[in-house]
Amino acid sequence: MGKNKDEFVKEITNIEDDIAQWYTDIVIKADLADYTDTKGCIAIKPYGYAIWENIQKYTDQKFKETGVENAYFPLLIPESLLQKEKDHVEGFAPEVAWVTEAGDKKLEEKYCIRPTSETIIATMYSKWLNSWRDLPILYNQWCNVFRWEMETRPFLRSREFLWQEGHTLHETAEEARQRTLQMLEVYNDVTENLLAIPTIKGIKTEKEKFAGAEETYTIETMMYDGKALQSATSHYFGQNFSKPFEIKFQNREGKEEYAYQTSWGCSTRLIGAIIMAHGDNRGLKIPPKVAPIQVVIVPIAQHKEGVLEKANEVFENLKKSFRIKLDDRDNYSTGYKFNDWEMRGVPVRIELGPRDIENGVCVVVRRDTGEKETVELSNLNEVLEKLLIDIHNNMYNECKKRLEERTTIAHNLEEFEKQINEKQGFIKTMWCGDVACEEKIKELTAAKSRCMPFEQENLGDTCVCCGKKATKMVVWGRQY
Amino acid sequence: MGKNKDEFVKEITNIEDDIAQWYTDIVIKADLADYTDTKGCIAIKPYGYAIWENIQKYTDQKFKETGVENAYFPLLIPESLLQKEKDHVEGFAPEVAWVTEAGDKKLEEKYCIRPTSETIIATMYSKWLNSWRDLPILYNQWCNVFRWEMETRPFLRSREFLWQEGHTLHETAEEARQRTLQMLEVYNDVTENLLAIPTIKGIKTEKEKFAGAEETYTIETMMYDGKALQSATSHYFGQNFSKPFEIKFQNREGKEEYAYQTSWGCSTRLIGAIIMAHGDNRGLKIPPKVAPIQVVIVPIAQHKEGVLEKANEVFENLKKSFRIKLDDRDNYSTGYKFNDWEMRGVPVRIELGPRDIENGVCVVVRRDTGEKETVELSNLNEVLEKLLIDIHNNMYNECKKRLEERTTIAHNLEEFEKQINEKQGFIKTMWCGDVACEEKIKELTAAKSRCMPFEQENLGDTCVCCGKKATKMVVWGRQY
Repeated sequence: MGKNKDEFVKEITNIEDDIAQWYTDIVIKADLADYTDTKGCIAIKPYGYAIWENIQKYTDQKFKETGVENAYFPLLIPESLLQKEKDHVEGFAPEVAWVTEAGDKKLEEKYCIRPTSETIIATMYSKWLNSWRDLPILYNQWCNVFRWEMETRPFLRSREFLWQEGHTLHETAEEARQRTLQMLEVYNDVTENLLAIPTIKGIKTEKEKFAGAEETYTIETMMYDGKALQSATSHYFGQNFSKPFEIKFQNREGKEEYAYQTSWGCSTRLIGAIIMAHGDNRGLKIPPKVAPIQVVIVPIAQHKEGVLEKANEVFENLKKSFRIKLDDRDNYSTGYKFNDWEMRGVPVRIELGPRDIENGVCVVVRRDTGEKETVELSNLNEVLEKLLIDIHNNMYNECKKRLEERTTIAHNLEEFEKQINEKQGFIKTMWCGDVACEEKIKELTAAKSRCMPFEQENLGDTCVCCGKKATKMVVWGRQY
Repeated sequence: MGKNKDEFVKEITNIEDDIAQWYTDIVIKADLADYTDTKGCIAIKPYGYAIWENIQKYTDQKFKETGVENAYFPLLIPESLLQKEKDHVEGFAPEVAWVTEAGDKKLEEKYCIRPTSETIIATMYSKWLNSWRDLPILYNQWCNVFRWEMETRPFLRSREFLWQEGHTLHETAEEARQRTLQMLEVYNDVTENLLAIPTIKGIKTEKEKFAGAEETYTIETMMYDGKALQSATSHYFGQNFSKPFEIKFQNREGKEEYAYQTSWGCSTRLIGAIIMAHGDNRGLKIPPKVAPIQVVIVPIAQHKEGVLEKANEVFENLKKSFRIKLDDRDNYSTGYKFNDWEMRGVPVRIELGPRDIENGVCVVVRRDTGEKETVELSNLNEVLEKLLIDIHNNMYNECKKRLEERTTIAHNLEEFEKQINEKQGFIKTMWCGDVACEEKIKELTAAKSRCMPFEQENLGDTCVCCGKKATKMVVWGRQY
């Protein structure tokens, strides 16, 4: 396993040699999270949690602008509730954690820790909903959920993770479907405009949809190595839950009707997406809009007279406009600091030494390209504002370029296998709609259907697998 | 059991007759929360959760101003970790929920759902702390915790509740103690300046302190019926956890030393405090600074031409400065709306009818006093700003008056019993410091020591219970 040669970041595995180990190195060394004594669960450290807070703040605001209100439902779900929707329980029962004792007593009915909250929320909704006048109900909760996964990876697949889950009720199927798509657009906005990761939007196949859903919509993204990450999903339930849970209302005609339902979620997995989509051999690259520290000032020769004073002055001038840090540690070398902040993915570094101060300038260094620029201190605010936007756009474009380069078209299985093995990425094909073909492809190539993109293309008339008449274009990929 | 006579709020039990039932009525009718199928756990509805969001926002900001950073630690704690601090496990083991199975498998080691996170956090701290240069470590988490309480009550004592728990590490005992007191001051600020509830600050007796703490500081408040509510606590641990958990650092002299530790928390119990401290027979009274809706506009004769248009115009003008709602429902009478919003505790109601509009005025009604005032629409913004401050101050003063009126001084047990039975409230006494006296008082009167207030008074030389030499003044009260 090759190690990166740079003196300061030598502890980080080379991303080309072993991306899995590289990922773990970054999570630990950049102080995003750490392993704990609770198997499969991480502790999220302040630097990682601050990214989540920035995602939350933006997303929560977007939700509220569409009329969503926050609420909170119980962590524990009685076994009998989980059982009520057949597909749902089949999907989740194998990986739930069960509470069977309290104090030194055995419980009469066991409770599972919520793997998701459809069942407990549906029960409350059936109690709360009376009339069409109560609709729509648009509730969301920010909380922790738990799924007893066998193979875990920090952020990307953790037994416990933090997320939000929105659950809405509607008068009509059409309105519910619109809400499903509206929330998918919020996630698309978050992924592209906040995290600088281009997306493919689409609908999941029957096989890949959420347990209990009628339709599952998804935001798919491509990571550094060409693998896919499902970044957020939005589900249309129709009346699948409202019937077994009796979520009924009196409609405008005075008749009793079952409500139409949606749910939608995104999680701390998005932090994993940031690492995997943007990182490189120097470490993390955090998109400016969610970076806990957007700009770091590293004084040069800080022991010299006036350097720290000036650095402090610059810091004070900028701190109203940017999330900024002054690194005045006296027990680390300047070179160490440069590499340390690069590894932590801070978008911009400002270097400020005695000669710069004499000339009224500083040196501004971009994390994304490594480019250096000498900037007048009097212009600094304005330059940084533009630079952060530029860095966001450049990071987005880099990902977009990769997405395009690593997306290929296959017309038959031979092409499919060749492409995915030679250049791991997304593969577009036509598909007949038969789950048997989907399963065969997965068996042969380890690639799953990511989605049937909204932007359908006509790549031919026949299914990539069986050669029968094709009905849909599908994007396939190996996944995290 | 008497019911309130008012036609619209008749469903609410009279507070003088049965405050426990009154409390439950308010929680349900004002849409703060509801009971769930998970015994002892509530669902917090948007109107209740929005109060929590306002408390969180303010408190989180105050924490961050003192250098605190947010993080997140696992929900589940391995049994072996919980065992490490003797007092701590004794205090919490009887009421923890145990996860013993996952999927269909029995686990080798069981996990408890965190009742509080000292043990799991201490384990991580022992891994993360190396040198005095790493100190102080000032982490906080906003999360859910679980305690299998036998008697529960929404918000005040729920099996699951939401809270924040801060956990800090320090170089010296003095610095840790200062932090403990600093965070108590934050809670005092929140309770008095945000929730409009006057406090008594003090230190808990040995008997009442947190399981594993060296010292527990507390914010005590008085509810409507004179009972006490512990609103927030801040603990100084000394090295009680750092020794068993091996949280060591190299000090400035190069020697290994155990860190000094604190923890501090406040919870959704504060919503219970708001209900119980401020409510009355018309329902909730929410302090303006945390009210989800600060001002509600109720149009009069809204079917008449121009009324809704004008109401909308007023709404648009005010919405930048206040959390405001326009109640234009056409299926409820004006009288119903007045009572409904009073019951929900909205601090200010604006009435706007055709004649008001002609005269360029509206009627402004205070929830706290019921006073009405005619206000020029052109002055409305300014008047409301002052009014909300005035309402806050008046609500605070009302509570302060009650606190003073219901606090008495007892010199012997006879006085103590007479006072607490005649006029339930706080009782100040001198105390010898012996736990036997504390237990005897509890047995006789059902009152517990609330705290030894920072503001000590000399009420005499002898203990209220045993007559021996007294060392401390204590405040006692029955509690929620």
